[in-house]
Amino acid sequence: MGKLAETINAVEPIGEELYQTTQARLDHLTKPQGSLGRLEEFARRYVAITGRESPKIEKKTIYTFAADHGVAEEGVSAFPREVTAQMVYNFLQGGAGINVLARLVGAEVKVVDIGVDHDFQSREGLIIKKVAKGTKNMAKGPAMSREEAIRALETGIELVEEAAKQELDLLGTGDMGIANTTPSSAIAAVFTGEKVERVTGRGTGIDDETLKRKIEVITRALEVNQPDPQEPLDVLAKVGGLEIGGIAGLILGAAAKRIPVVVDGFISSAGALLAVRLQSRAKDYIFAAHCSVEVGHRAVLDGIGQRPMLDLDLRLGEGTGAALGMFLVEAGIRILGEMATFGEAGVSEAEE
Amino acid sequence: MGKLAETINAVEPIGEELYQTTQARLDHLTKPQGSLGRLEEFARRYVAITGRESPKIEKKTIYTFAADHGVAEEGVSAFPREVTAQMVYNFLQGGAGINVLARLVGAEVKVVDIGVDHDFQSREGLIIKKVAKGTKNMAKGPAMSREEAIRALETGIELVEEAAKQELDLLGTGDMGIANTTPSSAIAAVFTGEKVERVTGRGTGIDDETLKRKIEVITRALEVNQPDPQEPLDVLAKVGGLEIGGIAGLILGAAAKRIPVVVDGFISSAGALLAVRLQSRAKDYIFAAHCSVEVGHRAVLDGIGQRPMLDLDLRLGEGTGAALGMFLVEAGIRILGEMATFGEAGVSEAEE
Repeated sequence: MGKLAETINAVEPIGEELYQTTQARLDHLTKPQGSLGRLEEFARRYVAITGRESPKIEKKTIYTFAADHGVAEEGVSAFPREVTAQMVYNFLQGGAGINVLARLVGAEVKVVDIGVDHDFQSREGLIIKKVAKGTKNMAKGPAMSREEAIRALETGIELVEEAAKQELDLLGTGDMGIANTTPSSAIAAVFTGEKVERVTGRGTGIDDETLKRKIEVITRALEVNQPDPQEPLDVLAKVGGLEIGGIAGLILGAAAKRIPVVVDGFISSAGALLAVRLQSRAKDYIFAAHCSVEVGHRAVLDGIGQRPMLDLDLRLGEGTGAALGMFLVEAGIRILGEMATFGEAGVSEAEE
Repeated sequence: MGKLAETINAVEPIGEELYQTTQARLDHLTKPQGSLGRLEEFARRYVAITGRESPKIEKKTIYTFAADHGVAEEGVSAFPREVTAQMVYNFLQGGAGINVLARLVGAEVKVVDIGVDHDFQSREGLIIKKVAKGTKNMAKGPAMSREEAIRALETGIELVEEAAKQELDLLGTGDMGIANTTPSSAIAAVFTGEKVERVTGRGTGIDDETLKRKIEVITRALEVNQPDPQEPLDVLAKVGGLEIGGIAGLILGAAAKRIPVVVDGFISSAGALLAVRLQSRAKDYIFAAHCSVEVGHRAVLDGIGQRPMLDLDLRLGEGTGAALGMFLVEAGIRILGEMATFGEAGVSEAEE
């Protein structure tokens, strides 16, 4: 059995009992029961995932997967293809949005070259795990081979396995890849059954004409490739992206190791949906950071089965939303760990 | 002219030009234009409020106003009245929800006794500015005199004036007062024109029977007192609360001093609505932290004219939502101050 199948099989249901006992503990803290709403939900699910009853969130890592896309040649993005590699350098220099927000929340950013069409030198903060120099143009045929799809997924899994050797409290996902909302929308259309135009948005900010072309390109890619929605690997190979595969693998690897993972925006969510289609139990390990401006995001989140934490009109990717989501998970854990109980504080409880 | 009128007159429109120039700066950073959504909105508005073009958010203070309510004797809350004072002690010991979340975001909590029915000893972190030992029962007559209403507002103003002598980058509001969703709903009904049952919720978690009684009590209070919606001071005096007045004063004082203020949940929003009715310009100085579970909150936020930052099913008050909202304002400011421009990072811009 290969690493992918092994990992999928290793994902267990989260601890239902811990979910209940943690809520009971939250109910003894000096606040009306349930009054911290979703912060309580984040705390009890974190405990149920990890099995750690008194967790502290110290070590946080965001993996930002970068890859190029053959479909960029169809003119579906507002930015030129070389921006993928340029932004990787920006990440490494600490000047991108993800660097700023990761610093704010105390998370480390690891940039993964899983398929950029550029040769990087080895460098601090950069993990070179290139599966290919970008995908092929999915409007003309499969984006990648089945073997490459498996390699992309296993790359994500291996990164978690490596990271999990040290203490690791919270993972985040992120992406960089010019044109990558195009495969994400294709994946969304296949898995949700929605029409292409219902799940295709403006990405980095394309105009009406380009949006029309993007919808045509995705429609053509689905016609040419006929991806089978029952076969997630087939979907990834035919209309996916290498970074989307890496993100899906990271999520499966995290679930197998019982590490909670905060999933960023539209591209990361396409990866998460892929992960959930490969292993439905993965859903409970996912914190969906936010609902982005991308029109297809809501349908993808519904497909994953997680309600987003934030709704801030974000559409940058990189893991920026995940960084903000990490803060909210941590807020829930701090509440659980630091608030006084009614007994400790000498506060009267609610009257029956 | 008294302090209240002086302060109301001192509130100026925020700097429209700075709003534009800050957005132009955000548009040169290495991200698609507008792709950080509301974080960009928070940053440009912060600059327009303060006039500081390269701000850093270091000194953050949350004022949690505590007061008792005569209307508690009508049995409108799930908690006994003595919990107001007990929770003040919990705040001072650092064990409450607001303490935990304020620590997480690096904010100081100042607890203001503006009307608790208990004699506190002087203590670090507690500001004793008691206007009265709680309000009177508004179901039987005015909650307070017009003089007390003015004192409550001026107490909030004075706190900002005192704090503004030192550097102060961001203010937050919070509340503690058993039964205080009852006056908040009354204020909401008067100012928004909504029916009482449309703006009255379960507060700390009351059952159906108590909710029915709460609606009846508010309806009676409005009939008995006939507050004039065109006269905000009349509304505060007749169906308000001392902490609600303090919060409204803090907001007006902050606006007069050009300090951005993050407004917490339902009770704080009732105070904010009062502030905006006293001076409509105050609206632009307000960051509405979140939309709570309280059914009337959305209508109050619409009345203020600010879209909430978060929607996390919170209903604790104390300033807990404000602490989380402060984090998001800071995230926006960090983006503005720390991200690289396209030129600095050598990243190609979008194609026209």
